[in-house]
Amino acid sequence: MWGGRFAEGPSAIMREINASIPFDKALWRQDIAASRAHVAMLAACGIVADADAETILAGLEQVAAEYEANGVPENWDLEDIHMTTESRLAELIGPVAGRLHTARSRNDQVATDFRLWVRDAIDQVDAGLAALQRALVMQAQAHADSIMPGFTHLQTAQPVTLGHHLLAYYEMIARDRSRFADARTRMNVSPLGSAALAGTGFPIDRHMTAQALGFAAPMRNSLDGVSDRDFALDYLQAAAQCSLHLSRLAEEFVIWASQPFGFVRMADSLSTGSSIMPQKKNPDAAELVRGHAGRIVGCLTSLMVTMKGLPLAYSKDMQDDKPPVFEAANLLGLSIAAMTGMVADSTFRTDRMRQAAELGYATATDLADWLVRQANIPFREAHHITGAAVKLAESRGIALDELSLEDLQAFDTRIDQRVYAALSVEASVAARASYGGTAPDQVRARVAEAMQELEQGR
Amino acid sequence: MWGGRFAEGPSAIMREINASIPFDKALWRQDIAASRAHVAMLAACGIVADADAETILAGLEQVAAEYEANGVPENWDLEDIHMTTESRLAELIGPVAGRLHTARSRNDQVATDFRLWVRDAIDQVDAGLAALQRALVMQAQAHADSIMPGFTHLQTAQPVTLGHHLLAYYEMIARDRSRFADARTRMNVSPLGSAALAGTGFPIDRHMTAQALGFAAPMRNSLDGVSDRDFALDYLQAAAQCSLHLSRLAEEFVIWASQPFGFVRMADSLSTGSSIMPQKKNPDAAELVRGHAGRIVGCLTSLMVTMKGLPLAYSKDMQDDKPPVFEAANLLGLSIAAMTGMVADSTFRTDRMRQAAELGYATATDLADWLVRQANIPFREAHHITGAAVKLAESRGIALDELSLEDLQAFDTRIDQRVYAALSVEASVAARASYGGTAPDQVRARVAEAMQELEQGR
Amino acid sequence: MWGGRFAEGPSAIMREINASIPFDKALWRQDIAASRAHVAMLAACGIVADADAETILAGLEQVAAEYEANGVPENWDLEDIHMTTESRLAELIGPVAGRLHTARSRNDQVATDFRLWVRDAIDQVDAGLAALQRALVMQAQAHADSIMPGFTHLQTAQPVTLGHHLLAYYEMIARDRSRFADARTRMNVSPLGSAALAGTGFPIDRHMTAQALGFAAPMRNSLDGVSDRDFALDYLQAAAQCSLHLSRLAEEFVIWASQPFGFVRMADSLSTGSSIMPQKKNPDAAELVRGHAGRIVGCLTSLMVTMKGLPLAYSKDMQDDKPPVFEAANLLGLSIAAMTGMVADSTFRTDRMRQAAELGYATATDLADWLVRQANIPFREAHHITGAAVKLAESRGIALDELSLEDLQAFDTRIDQRVYAALSVEASVAARASYGGTAPDQVRARVAEAMQELEQGR
Amino acid sequence: MWGGRFAEGPSAIMREINASIPFDKALWRQDIAASRAHVAMLAACGIVADADAETILAGLEQVAAEYEANGVPENWDLEDIHMTTESRLAELIGPVAGRLHTARSRNDQVATDFRLWVRDAIDQVDAGLAALQRALVMQAQAHADSIMPGFTHLQTAQPVTLGHHLLAYYEMIARDRSRFADARTRMNVSPLGSAALAGTGFPIDRHMTAQALGFAAPMRNSLDGVSDRDFALDYLQAAAQCSLHLSRLAEEFVIWASQPFGFVRMADSLSTGSSIMPQKKNPDAAELVRGHAGRIVGCLTSLMVTMKGLPLAYSKDMQDDKPPVFEAANLLGLSIAAMTGMVADSTFRTDRMRQAAELGYATATDLADWLVRQANIPFREAHHITGAAVKLAESRGIALDELSLEDLQAFDTRIDQRVYAALSVEASVAARASYGGTAPDQVRARVAEAMQELEQGR
Repeated sequence: MWGGRFAEGPSAIMREINASIPFDKALWRQDIAASRAHVAMLAACGIVADADAETILAGLEQVAAEYEANGVPENWDLEDIHMTTESRLAELIGPVAGRLHTARSRNDQVATDFRLWVRDAIDQVDAGLAALQRALVMQAQAHADSIMPGFTHLQTAQPVTLGHHLLAYYEMIARDRSRFADARTRMNVSPLGSAALAGTGFPIDRHMTAQALGFAAPMRNSLDGVSDRDFALDYLQAAAQCSLHLSRLAEEFVIWASQPFGFVRMADSLSTGSSIMPQKKNPDAAELVRGHAGRIVGCLTSLMVTMKGLPLAYSKDMQDDKPPVFEAANLLGLSIAAMTGMVADSTFRTDRMRQAAELGYATATDLADWLVRQANIPFREAHHITGAAVKLAESRGIALDELSLEDLQAFDTRIDQRVYAALSVEASVAARASYGGTAPDQVRARVAEAMQELEQGR
Repeated sequence: MWGGRFAEGPSAIMREINASIPFDKALWRQDIAASRAHVAMLAACGIVADADAETILAGLEQVAAEYEANGVPENWDLEDIHMTTESRLAELIGPVAGRLHTARSRNDQVATDFRLWVRDAIDQVDAGLAALQRALVMQAQAHADSIMPGFTHLQTAQPVTLGHHLLAYYEMIARDRSRFADARTRMNVSPLGSAALAGTGFPIDRHMTAQALGFAAPMRNSLDGVSDRDFALDYLQAAAQCSLHLSRLAEEFVIWASQPFGFVRMADSLSTGSSIMPQKKNPDAAELVRGHAGRIVGCLTSLMVTMKGLPLAYSKDMQDDKPPVFEAANLLGLSIAAMTGMVADSTFRTDRMRQAAELGYATATDLADWLVRQANIPFREAHHITGAAVKLAESRGIALDELSLEDLQAFDTRIDQRVYAALSVEASVAARASYGGTAPDQVRARVAEAMQELEQGR
Repeated sequence: MWGGRFAEGPSAIMREINASIPFDKALWRQDIAASRAHVAMLAACGIVADADAETILAGLEQVAAEYEANGVPENWDLEDIHMTTESRLAELIGPVAGRLHTARSRNDQVATDFRLWVRDAIDQVDAGLAALQRALVMQAQAHADSIMPGFTHLQTAQPVTLGHHLLAYYEMIARDRSRFADARTRMNVSPLGSAALAGTGFPIDRHMTAQALGFAAPMRNSLDGVSDRDFALDYLQAAAQCSLHLSRLAEEFVIWASQPFGFVRMADSLSTGSSIMPQKKNPDAAELVRGHAGRIVGCLTSLMVTMKGLPLAYSKDMQDDKPPVFEAANLLGLSIAAMTGMVADSTFRTDRMRQAAELGYATATDLADWLVRQANIPFREAHHITGAAVKLAESRGIALDELSLEDLQAFDTRIDQRVYAALSVEASVAARASYGGTAPDQVRARVAEAMQELEQGR
Repeated sequence: MWGGRFAEGPSAIMREINASIPFDKALWRQDIAASRAHVAMLAACGIVADADAETILAGLEQVAAEYEANGVPENWDLEDIHMTTESRLAELIGPVAGRLHTARSRNDQVATDFRLWVRDAIDQVDAGLAALQRALVMQAQAHADSIMPGFTHLQTAQPVTLGHHLLAYYEMIARDRSRFADARTRMNVSPLGSAALAGTGFPIDRHMTAQALGFAAPMRNSLDGVSDRDFALDYLQAAAQCSLHLSRLAEEFVIWASQPFGFVRMADSLSTGSSIMPQKKNPDAAELVRGHAGRIVGCLTSLMVTMKGLPLAYSKDMQDDKPPVFEAANLLGLSIAAMTGMVADSTFRTDRMRQAAELGYATATDLADWLVRQANIPFREAHHITGAAVKLAESRGIALDELSLEDLQAFDTRIDQRVYAALSVEASVAARASYGGTAPDQVRARVAEAMQELEQGR
């Protein structure tokens, strides 16, 4: 395959370290598509005869059919998907197969194939994320009024609604989709025709192949065309951030499913048992989503380290671009699907949530706010008064609204009977009606917007 | 500052681990700006009296003037820039200062400040990258015809022009600018008014503060508003990718400046000497750019690890978001500036480059291409014939065009005298006139486009 | 400082990117110590005159006294701590200062200084970790009998004792100390005398300087001496693993301090309040320990990326070795101290723990084990029977030992009255008396061993 | 398999995300070994009958034989290697198979299996590294006198010998072996018998199983036993550092193989060609070693992120520990083997190296040193004089020893004819005879030591 260049064949270790066919066979569809576009253009430009092009196209169709039926054969001597396909093509149609590689190189070929693959992967992720958003919105709608403790520092802070909490994840996923969309736009230019690194002397038409493959334009610099892996890094970065969001939601499910919380009963279909403890029902899917985030971050790190300090143009180090991307795509796809199931199929124990929202003096801020509004004292002073009231209640082991009016007035004489109305969790939640706040009406308004966005395919 | 809540003060270690003022004082301008917007809105909405708002605004102006003149004082007991400013405000204007914190929390305050800071950092980076692009384009214009060896695997591959090589970096930087711009758009929404986590019961106008601070809109979910650090991750990811591009260019400068290459003479102003070896002139700036890439990747890793698995809403872990962002911004700014100087002020030794382009049978592809075009044989066969010719020339220690016609015809009888015209590096470069190829005319066309883009502020 | 080599001085950006004095001044003690050892050796070997050596030693003492009193001046033109010190020495003692740099280079000088610094940092970490172990052991002793739920997947699994749980961290820290000790041994060889990269022609005695600085031996290869940063990576790796252990314990404190768990009341001295929510008492120190783990992992990543693919010998990229090490050391020191305080000063609410241990059918395994032992049925079958019993109890909302004997016998007739004795959490814990198990006697035995180890300074 | 616990089976996505059998089947040998040790102990302790134990042992032998012959079947419903094996055992020997899982859990089982696997992997790596050291030492011996330019900043610094350069890598690999050995010692304790998390009520003998499996002792805390993954992190950290060393050597091969350097001719068996450029002979193996370093660093990052903040005891996230370790082990093994071949089979072009050593004023330090020794002037002054001499020579385009004595004396009148003897590269190298320096005698002494170490199996 490398002509008459070498006196010896590659040694065993070289064959093994060099062969990318075990993983780059995943690119076969993209490789066939790019070859079809290339040979059609060669014919249109008069670089190969029409008859030869037709023979090659028919041959490629045949190879594709074989791959579809039987998978791609892994012959390490043929190194990669490109040589594997060309070699099979030559078996099928003879020496004319050798005309396919005119005016191109494996360098621009793999850059094109991989870019197409990542573009497809983005489209799949986007569909998965939209489904997850739908699941979040449906549950948010159902739980626009369900009160739970809102936490900061995992300490009870203020009551919120479950619907509001779930919509926070809707927003994160919306940013993820926007990030993937930006990456898609940025990567959607064609390296095909960059050849080895310098372009080619054949009178090719790069705009034609770009268009045939759905790219917005050809890349403007051939050295960049074969050396650029930004598209893979953009994908991995978007995947890593998305996985961090999923890991946050997973962490909440794990905590909520614990016995002391008991906020959620996970679907049997997303839990597993124990080989030793018969009572166990473990939130494995959530934990694996969290674990997969670690691996996806590792995939990103991997490619950043690999690309660091590489001079132009193509270096073989870049062959190590595909395993992390393939792995991240697989792990992310599983994580999104698992999380969608978890959101859709879990049973939220709203009674337990409501009960927990009462703990921890969650409406203390409401007392402070009441003092500002009713007694017109500066917030800092109101905050101080409330702190003292909490301290007293805590020392007695009672709730804030179980303090007598006398007790409260000892802190500030301006407090009167009306304060108790502000101290229920329902009142607290309903009061937070500022834009984007947790009040049920706000939640319902956001749900309606989100549904409209999803319908519009955003 | 935390009211009457605690019986004991924080211990010494707590003061030290907890205090963020040593680094978050960098946010003072943004903190003052956000407070001004907040208090103006509170007055407009009738939540604080106009007179109080004016007193607070005047006080904030005074605090800002003090910071500008003397820097921000670092008192660990005041924890952070927010309490430092509020405390000084209270000294200046008395208890009315306590009204400023109405309807907000440090959680939404820091989210707003930090977002503003990162937005400013993006604007600075963009200006720096445009300057670097300008330097690249100027050198590319000057060297549109300068021939150098194009490398793949750091092996001489095909001749290219230096201008073409430098424009590859123009493209990378263009993608970096696009990535930062996308990040800016995505982050440009306002968390202010999210309060602690749930929104507020005060009748605030979040659209008003958003507009005052240059945000496109308020964020739609208060829990997300205080828990989101995507904007910092987006910034770090764009910075990391940009630093990888700079590290690639830096690697080339280091290699090119080596004695065996001798392609470049770096400006004295960007080199250093040795404490022991008097002859040394080291490309330190290029090496530091490479080293800084490592640190910027580390900053990104840091924040990804920190955010992984954090439940909503704010957790104190998030305080560890600022040091990596501040560090990355500093290192990236230095790297861009150093690289701009390196590109602009280095002397390219075109004689050495031209000479090196002759080595390594760089025009072998041209022989193969000639065979395809002139003799209409499939590329694979032409590739094989050329491989054998290279082998023969190498065994004799001569160049490809030093083989006699007789020798060449022994490989294929269809070779004739015209082949020699194809084997010069000038012919090779001129031939690669496909779109985006290395031919000088292509390079000049791309330079013209780039100049137009830069003029248009893109 | 670089002789007559340069026509121009370094430009402003070069001065800034190049100057390491802002951070490497932290090495001043080590730099003085290494210079003292070096000059004493030069005199002993007859390379400088004794009188000159004495002058230099006296001068160094003076410089050290100045640094101690006033700090190290930051003059960017003097680049680093080495030139800063030598320059001040020259001011104090004149041209004889120029003899100090005989037979050495900044390359071996900084390698020596930094190695000494890291060695000192390890010694400090070890002392801190021993204190943390002591705190763990004291609490484990106090809580050898305190029953809490043991979790897997954060689901109640089997009852354990708090003492046992805390001793798991004792083991992790023991491994950390062993890892730091290994790193110390591996790094404790001297690069001094490697000079720039090749050794020196002066008749120096490297064993003498090695011994003077407490190194076990001189390094055996001068190129390796100046190019090796394994010692920094070893330190960062040990720090990263240690920080992961601390982050796990911190995570437990955060979860345990939540209202639904309520397992721990953190000391006021290690908590903070909220600027808006008067009732809050947040486990900030624990959260910061978790956040710092992210940053320490980032520091490790940083140096790995920087070192990747650097050819021998010294490259300036290596200057980026110090900031991550200094930062990690600072963050780790704070984290260990905070965690020691948290372990020592927290109040464990053993009543809440005991109560939680009853939930979640924690003794189901004990039922299965009882069936194996009493009825001699294979474990898998016993597991199946128990699973069905749990299902029944769960459907009735009762505990396992609230099922009637009749109910239990419906699953297996071999069950008799004695089974109830096995189903209490006390019985469960006491039964797990296998080596390293959670039975209180086992815990007490491990506490005794640990105390002995700590006394012996291990 | 999880008893009667679940009403529904796991859904399709759960089966896929949960199943570890696709990768953990790699543990089958270790799993069988651990089961054999466990059941032998159960019998010795009277927990299962001898006859049952014999049946189980025979069954395990049969399962192992089947795996050896036909591979491990991948049935996702059986989740992992443990259930796969137990299930097949039950098919072969009936319900008595259910006694094997007495007094153990999958938690301690997988901790044991994986630990054994990593221990084996270390032993393999150590053998590979010893072979690489041997290759380095053989070449160092052959090239103890071969002069090449020593570089700092990739600038010619001082002449060194190739043997000396290669021995620097011997030292790095020696540290790698020491790091792996430390990791092995630290991990060589047995988690078996920790059961699910709390130990077991059966009267097991953990020392017996520990001994049977070659462990030094049982782990002392059962919670730690099932939660600890330090051994995997220790392995990955050692692998990452080793891969960084290999990447440095690979970088040198890539640079040395470039046409402008031309220091090395790589074996055909470790190079590849180009699909388009017939003359290419690319150092692919070296580049892949560099690329693999990126991926191994990514594997380490992955597991660190995964373990961060996990509460005790086992969480399912930990299932994500194996893929990165398996991948790193595979990539590291390939990299070591490829690098060993590269060192052993490359042809060093000593003529080109010698020639390059003359460039770049490599002996300028020797002039400065000569001035110190002969004229007794302080080094700093000598450094300054030499700098000026280099500047003059450079401006004339000549070497340092081509300056006339007159020219030299213009800089310092103490310079005389003898100086020229110090300025040859041979003299320079021979002079650096300090311990660990590059002088051929030093190199030969180090080679002799290294050979002795390797013979002694160190």
